Amino acid sequence: MKVSEVESGEISKGASSSSSPSKRRMKRGLAIMDFILRIFAATSTLGSAVSMGTAKQTMPFATRFVRFKVVYHDLPTFVFFVTANSIVCGYLVLSLALSFFHIVRTISVKSRILLVFLDTVMFGLLTSGASAAAAIVNIAHYGNSSANWFPFCQQYNYFCGRISGSLIGSFIAVVVFIILILMSEISISKH
Amino acid sequence: MKVSEVESGEISKGASSSSSPSKRRMKRGLAIMDFILRIFAATSTLGSAVSMGTAKQTMPFATRFVRFKVVYHDLPTFVFFVTANSIVCGYLVLSLALSFFHIVRTISVKSRILLVFLDTVMFGLLTSGASAAAAIVNIAHYGNSSANWFPFCQQYNYFCGRISGSLIGSFIAVVVFIILILMSEISISKH
Repeated sequence: MKVSEVESGEISKGASSSSSPSKRRMKRGLAIMDFILRIFAATSTLGSAVSMGTAKQTMPFATRFVRFKVVYHDLPTFVFFVTANSIVCGYLVLSLALSFFHIVRTISVKSRILLVFLDTVMFGLLTSGASAAAAIVNIAHYGNSSANWFPFCQQYNYFCGRISGSLIGSFIAVVVFIILILMSEISISKH
Repeated sequence: MKVSEVESGEISKGASSSSSPSKRRMKRGLAIMDFILRIFAATSTLGSAVSMGTAKQTMPFATRFVRFKVVYHDLPTFVFFVTANSIVCGYLVLSLALSFFHIVRTISVKSRILLVFLDTVMFGLLTSGASAAAAIVNIAHYGNSSANWFPFCQQYNYFCGRISGSLIGSFIAVVVFIILILMSEISISKH
């Protein structure tokens, strides 16, 4: 019994280290696509963070009800959005090192599990920031009559355009993360 | 060249189908924990959906500024929250079948990849719903002086307690999803 265990363990070890060239080619292809997608997602989140972080508008006139100036940090949700996008962008840039390591060494599995776990956490953080900001942007555009919340986009057109646009990059990165996680799964299963 | 490819493929196939008992035991253990965590997450999301879906409050008095009644569907974000939680709850109940299949058949890999992909998508949907609702609940509690948004929780205490409480179940399920995805990764890597 014990002998057969050792044997089967040895066979499986041998099989994994000498995996077929087509499998290795496929894993390398996935690793290269992973690397490219990470750069793309990092650019998207950077664009979102910068676009939201620099959004402000000063009104040329003043009445009793309209404020003079609006900046993104007037709304705490937008601060969270910028923070989340910045963290995810930083993570993506750092993860390029590990992604490059996977192009060179196709058989490593533990580092892939670590990467896909961190990807999942960052995916959650980014989705969270983007959705929370989208909920606030929705109220900024349409207001809510039940809660007596006034849509401030009627005055701050330019500011609203900027904050709405900044959501796009974030949601693109969310989709990229889903693809990245799926690709990692496939790569791990070919172990 | 071709012969060696076929041979190595056969060896790896043989190794995977007769994987060591300890590996199989570990995979079965992970599958059982997966099953239990899914039931737990389904209960959490169901609780969240019901708690938010039945939240309403009628005021015993009326002034010129205070509305008489508030229900969750006055705010579109809360409708999204209830929908997202209901979908995820339904998915979790359906996925129990596949999870049970993994307890019985520990070696299947393709169904695990399908499951972890669907898990990731549902994780995104749930995080999105919970974060959007949290952003609105934050404004309901504290308002926003820059945007002239009034915190309606000052009048609707009971309603606000219900909607704040309903977020808890959702965020618990979010954490459970991260654990589920990590466990699936480990299980796939032991293939």
